[in-house]
Amino acid sequence: MVEQPSDDLDLDAIFQALAHPIRRDILEQITDGSESVSELADPYDVSLAAVSKHLRVLEDAGLLDVEKDGRIRRCHLDAAPLSEAFGWLTRYRIFWEDRFDALADHLETEDQ
Amino acid sequence: MVEQPSDDLDLDAIFQALAHPIRRDILEQITDGSESVSELADPYDVSLAAVSKHLRVLEDAGLLDVEKDGRIRRCHLDAAPLSEAFGWLTRYRIFWEDRFDALADHLETEDQ
Repeated sequence: MVEQPSDDLDLDAIFQALAHPIRRDILEQITDGSESVSELADPYDVSLAAVSKHLRVLEDAGLLDVEKDGRIRRCHLDAAPLSEAFGWLTRYRIFWEDRFDALADHLETEDQ
Repeated sequence: MVEQPSDDLDLDAIFQALAHPIRRDILEQITDGSESVSELADPYDVSLAAVSKHLRVLEDAGLLDVEKDGRIRRCHLDAAPLSEAFGWLTRYRIFWEDRFDALADHLETEDQ
């Protein structure tokens, strides 16, 4: 019996962080540069505390760096974990395309 | 004030489904074809009930089709939601690459 996989906790945190529309939207907001917490919170109809919670989830997944600029907390994107998620899906996509190639080969053989 | 985005509930469910190593592993198991629930549960050191719960999360995200074959429940992959997740990350990657291009242009201008 195989033990439960445990070496990809980061991917868990990254996909979890992406599983909310506000968190995905925040990532899109900071692609162009850093923003303060209150600037980030402004577009949403939720409390500042709720936005701070979302920011912590992004920070824990390594997607967000928070830097203190006097009394202002500025948030920067760290896109490396996104490339980790992209990598998993790309690897998976290869499996998936192989499967369709094998099916196409099989159908071609049957036609002959 | 912008309302909380609500038109991408599917992406929430897809990323949530990918946020667990057993669920990602199950998806890899069924890339080569369908498997029964007990075959899928076999490699993991968790209860059949726990695996069934993971399968329901994958099914709710549209990643898994379950078909009854007599008394056996067979699970097939539906990869379309993965391509949705891949699409979001790809779009995002374009933003990210644009950002680095802009930075490179800026540095090049400064060098002149």
